[in-house]
Amino acid sequence: MIDLDFNKMGGLIPAIVQDHASGDVLMLAYMNAEAFNATLESGQATFFSRSRQALWVKGKTSGHVQHVKSVHIDCDQDAILVRVEQVGRAACHTGYRSCFYRRVENQTLKIDDQPVFDPKEVYKT
Amino acid sequence: MIDLDFNKMGGLIPAIVQDHASGDVLMLAYMNAEAFNATLESGQATFFSRSRQALWVKGKTSGHVQHVKSVHIDCDQDAILVRVEQVGRAACHTGYRSCFYRRVENQTLKIDDQPVFDPKEVYKT
Repeated sequence: MIDLDFNKMGGLIPAIVQDHASGDVLMLAYMNAEAFNATLESGQATFFSRSRQALWVKGKTSGHVQHVKSVHIDCDQDAILVRVEQVGRAACHTGYRSCFYRRVENQTLKIDDQPVFDPKEVYKT
Repeated sequence: MIDLDFNKMGGLIPAIVQDHASGDVLMLAYMNAEAFNATLESGQATFFSRSRQALWVKGKTSGHVQHVKSVHIDCDQDAILVRVEQVGRAACHTGYRSCFYRRVENQTLKIDDQPVFDPKEVYKT
């Protein structure tokens, strides 16, 4: 068993998701013990949604699932790094490849990427 | 002003630190508003230490400071990505380049990197 420190954050640990091919950081989400085990067992990145308070298989709605290539744990055992193959080229619900699509410049946020899908098409909103 | 969501985590936001040249994810730490502003103003990655409950200029003790190359904010404005030039080649106090130096394999943790410094030499412990 891997001894992770879920206590610091009330049962959750932050998980960084990185594209294994490009090295781009795609998103940050949270895992509880169940999500961590589901990620390892299924090979698909699975988180705990803080807003919905439920297990969240990334991409279940959009089809943009994340196939897990590796999982690393940090020195304090309170952070997770998941390297994935991102299906659909985009991790973010906004249509950008990465959730980190805005850069801080002169105290403002500047978009520095192009969206790869239209959220209205993918989520049928 | 950049409107970050510090409320979800009691005044803190997780900050991913990535080596701007290699793309390696080096560490995850936390920023409060003061640390975020100090990072932007000084150009050196600055965090809030949860264990010490104090501002933490990364590398102040070891000399392994992180020169900020860019700062990105995620879609929900509750996570930060800082790309840095890592002085001393290593971010982790253990002597490894990245805090994520252990990989999950068969329900155990396997070290999959070589340390680049001896912590006893750097921290004079």
